[in-house]
Amino acid sequence: MAQVQRMSRLMIKTLRDDPADAETLNHKLLVRAGYVRRTAAGIWTWLPLGKKVLENVTRVVREEMDAIGGQEVLLPALLPKEPYEASGRYDEYGDLLFRLQDRKGADYLLGPTHEEIFTQVVKDMCSSYKDLPVILYQIQTKYRDEARPRAGVLRGREFQMKDSYSFDTTDEGLAEAYQLHRAAYIRIFERLGLDHRVVSAVSGAMGGSASEEFLAPAPAGEDTFVDCPNCDYAANTEAVTFVATAADASAVPAVEELDTPDTPTIETLADFLGVPASATLKNLLVKVDGEIVAVGVPGDREVDLGKLGEHLAPAEVELVTAEDFVGRPDLVRGYVGPQGLEKVRYIADPRVAAGTSWITGANKEGVHARNVVAGRDFEVDQYLDVVVVEADDPCPKCGTGLRVDRAIEIGHIFQLGRKYADIFSLDVLGQQGKPVRVTMGSYGIGVSRAVAALAEQTADDKGLCWPREIAPADVHVVAAGKALQTELALDVAAKLGDAGVRVMVDDRAGVSPGVKFTDAELIGVPKILVAGRRSAEGVVELKDRRTGEREEITVDEAVARLTADLA
Amino acid sequence: MAQVQRMSRLMIKTLRDDPADAETLNHKLLVRAGYVRRTAAGIWTWLPLGKKVLENVTRVVREEMDAIGGQEVLLPALLPKEPYEASGRYDEYGDLLFRLQDRKGADYLLGPTHEEIFTQVVKDMCSSYKDLPVILYQIQTKYRDEARPRAGVLRGREFQMKDSYSFDTTDEGLAEAYQLHRAAYIRIFERLGLDHRVVSAVSGAMGGSASEEFLAPAPAGEDTFVDCPNCDYAANTEAVTFVATAADASAVPAVEELDTPDTPTIETLADFLGVPASATLKNLLVKVDGEIVAVGVPGDREVDLGKLGEHLAPAEVELVTAEDFVGRPDLVRGYVGPQGLEKVRYIADPRVAAGTSWITGANKEGVHARNVVAGRDFEVDQYLDVVVVEADDPCPKCGTGLRVDRAIEIGHIFQLGRKYADIFSLDVLGQQGKPVRVTMGSYGIGVSRAVAALAEQTADDKGLCWPREIAPADVHVVAAGKALQTELALDVAAKLGDAGVRVMVDDRAGVSPGVKFTDAELIGVPKILVAGRRSAEGVVELKDRRTGEREEITVDEAVARLTADLA
Repeated sequence: MAQVQRMSRLMIKTLRDDPADAETLNHKLLVRAGYVRRTAAGIWTWLPLGKKVLENVTRVVREEMDAIGGQEVLLPALLPKEPYEASGRYDEYGDLLFRLQDRKGADYLLGPTHEEIFTQVVKDMCSSYKDLPVILYQIQTKYRDEARPRAGVLRGREFQMKDSYSFDTTDEGLAEAYQLHRAAYIRIFERLGLDHRVVSAVSGAMGGSASEEFLAPAPAGEDTFVDCPNCDYAANTEAVTFVATAADASAVPAVEELDTPDTPTIETLADFLGVPASATLKNLLVKVDGEIVAVGVPGDREVDLGKLGEHLAPAEVELVTAEDFVGRPDLVRGYVGPQGLEKVRYIADPRVAAGTSWITGANKEGVHARNVVAGRDFEVDQYLDVVVVEADDPCPKCGTGLRVDRAIEIGHIFQLGRKYADIFSLDVLGQQGKPVRVTMGSYGIGVSRAVAALAEQTADDKGLCWPREIAPADVHVVAAGKALQTELALDVAAKLGDAGVRVMVDDRAGVSPGVKFTDAELIGVPKILVAGRRSAEGVVELKDRRTGEREEITVDEAVARLTADLA
Repeated sequence: MAQVQRMSRLMIKTLRDDPADAETLNHKLLVRAGYVRRTAAGIWTWLPLGKKVLENVTRVVREEMDAIGGQEVLLPALLPKEPYEASGRYDEYGDLLFRLQDRKGADYLLGPTHEEIFTQVVKDMCSSYKDLPVILYQIQTKYRDEARPRAGVLRGREFQMKDSYSFDTTDEGLAEAYQLHRAAYIRIFERLGLDHRVVSAVSGAMGGSASEEFLAPAPAGEDTFVDCPNCDYAANTEAVTFVATAADASAVPAVEELDTPDTPTIETLADFLGVPASATLKNLLVKVDGEIVAVGVPGDREVDLGKLGEHLAPAEVELVTAEDFVGRPDLVRGYVGPQGLEKVRYIADPRVAAGTSWITGANKEGVHARNVVAGRDFEVDQYLDVVVVEADDPCPKCGTGLRVDRAIEIGHIFQLGRKYADIFSLDVLGQQGKPVRVTMGSYGIGVSRAVAALAEQTADDKGLCWPREIAPADVHVVAAGKALQTELALDVAAKLGDAGVRVMVDDRAGVSPGVKFTDAELIGVPKILVAGRRSAEGVVELKDRRTGEREEITVDEAVARLTADLA
């Protein structure tokens, strides 16, 4: 027997106006409809309705994790520093980590993710290949001290996450655990009613499966991704690669210098010469661990410094400043060209393929050069995909122009391999009696973030609009106001409750029917049942929250229909 | 259909020996049976079996809180400092509070309890008397930086708690919310199978109901309590009162001084005079906010400094030191008596009632006085219950000798009144259109502590021994080892699982039957079903974990019986 939630007793307060600090839909609507309240920047209170939705998401995640043989555990959130020092992450996380000391001055952190501790748990608990494989998971509060917590519960500093970890003795075992998670995640997001894409999170034209992200397309998303309208390719924009094709430069004349006064930028140069920016080669100078490096990309493209940083990590990438040119006559600001740049390492985008010909700086003030051919007039030390991906860039699998969209990252699956097992010497006794190093996977779902993503994807101009499995109730019964109508509403709610339907009933006194209808739309329960003007006849109005379709039916029919929907 | 948990796939490791650092039964057994592991001092990892038990306790608590109309919410654990500064608790908690700063240097704390934040939530959400009463609860991770985290999960620094808060406009409403919680707590502890006592946590001969504790008697407990073998009186020892009876001193002669050289202690004095210690009056000197105060108790009793401190809070109580006697010729160390102690405030235990006659110090070195009568020869400025309670002290309700026992505090209910509403100006519009100050109650259950208490109370010399509702499974099926036995065990487990019985089946290969039996006893599932030597006939052994009773029955009968037990 499901609970009947009477709104007269529910702690709920709806707001007509968006909160002043809200920029995203989920923030506006979850606050206005009384699901959450902000306690501090990026730190949220889940009110009764919000807690129900969070619990529904949690249940789905738990059921599907159990179905793949995951074993639920609960690790602490307050963690000793030492394991994270061993892995190097105590420092690597930088300001993202909440750090604290206990009364004795010992260092602790609030866990952002638990690879280190899980590795230690398995090292303690498992000693033989017979004890593996194992998939462990927890649904737990996590902490990240975001620089700009924003977008409501989408990017909080305290948030709920499901994290799981697989432990295997073989690469095949890891691949299997990875596929189990991949399939479970697809089922989870389907049950949640989240429109989602599985995209490659690693470079590689073939879309390697060592790491994939689950993205929920939404304008409020902080991730961008591409997908191909022709084939199944989809990737985080940071993972998109460009397949280089060498060009035939045999007909290209020799390098020729051109006087190009006052053309230190691509725009001024292209204007001056009357050529498209794409004919020019842009050379960005950066410092990599303090050493000056030039990065070459076509003049019409932007360098993605984030991508460059990830390629070169753990080295630090910084932009050059005026001081870096002091004592370097070889570096002529605004007129750098890769030819003759002997003392500088040269990194280029694959578009600067062997045989391609460019207009670029001549390393002299006010002078450029044309017919500068890659591989003939200069050498590329390292090719890296470093340009910002744009719509219509070619699909690395089939060449079709890609689409670019914004999305919310709702899941991530990752074959870690032996990184943490190496750090903590996690071995088990193998079948041959010798120690075998364990290989690991790590898999996450943002549980509170999934609530935000659902709100973003399903809301309309009237308010929230939950899929049934996630909604705080199955049916929202509205008593229009008169005593007879309230009586009927409570009666039908009781009948539905007895039949196992989760019911909310708006029996508030002194609230106008108009406010009740508006609130019902804002709160977003999938079916709305109104005990209104035909209550005396036992006729109610059944409305679908999403489509707005409404019909007048008898109470018995309404109960029968809504109960049947459950099956 | 319940899950069948195969031990061959469960991450479990049992230990034959107690962990070196374990002092209490729950610590020893929960670690040995593979329920928990220590991650840091007072910080625990709940392994798969432990997580199941924790979840079972959580479910019972949630169901009973829902049944009294509690609305579940989830507040953050990472909390801004300001509300706790407003209440004064940011400082009052002292070292018990985990404090930290975010990347911008703003101060935060890890919540030990949430009165402040709940008050703010209700202030935001409720504006009229119509919005009340409200009971809000959460089941959440709490933090206390204990000086000596010990006793396993009994006293952790990170732990699970159910905390709830009631909000009412009237004292009668608060009393009702308090009674609802009291009844719900009794149902919860009954369902958990915890032997428990509800004891008064406040002084007062009538056992005031403004605060009561729920105690689970156990030798490992850190609380002591008394109960009366004759009536229903029970109280925390700190709350026990003594009902004073004035004595008739009309026949007592005048005060007489006695030379009592070298008798600065009660023992030496009683010895010297050949009287019982109870005939003497002990006067302890303490400093209360720096002022010297004398505390008089019968010579055979100890002063409970904790009790004294609570009575006098927020004043600070310290013991005097040698320096405090400098320049105070009126204070003769070891020979203090209340008569003639003019400049010193005199607090006494109610046993020093008007008309009682004592041997006490004469305020001269080496001299005592007898026939010193309270109310005749000295005045008591304030009577306070300050002695350590002992077995056979009279029950304040019926006079019968009390019993004293150790226990674990598993719950606490408390009528807070308007303390926090005053701090945060929590008013709602009353029925007469004027603001009404809200009154609150606060109620806690230690969820992880309840697991420890259950382990302490139910374990026997073979291991853990859970009540069915809390056990990680209903039935533990043991396959003795041969292929046929394993086949039968898995078959019967599947049948039980299909019938909704929660089953664990020990299908581990290469583990001897003896180890499996020992493990089953250690793990403590209430029923053990062994597929052993009569497996070929379809006969299994059904054993009750608690009583040890065993019988051989057919598989069908076993399934029928165990399924019927569920109903």
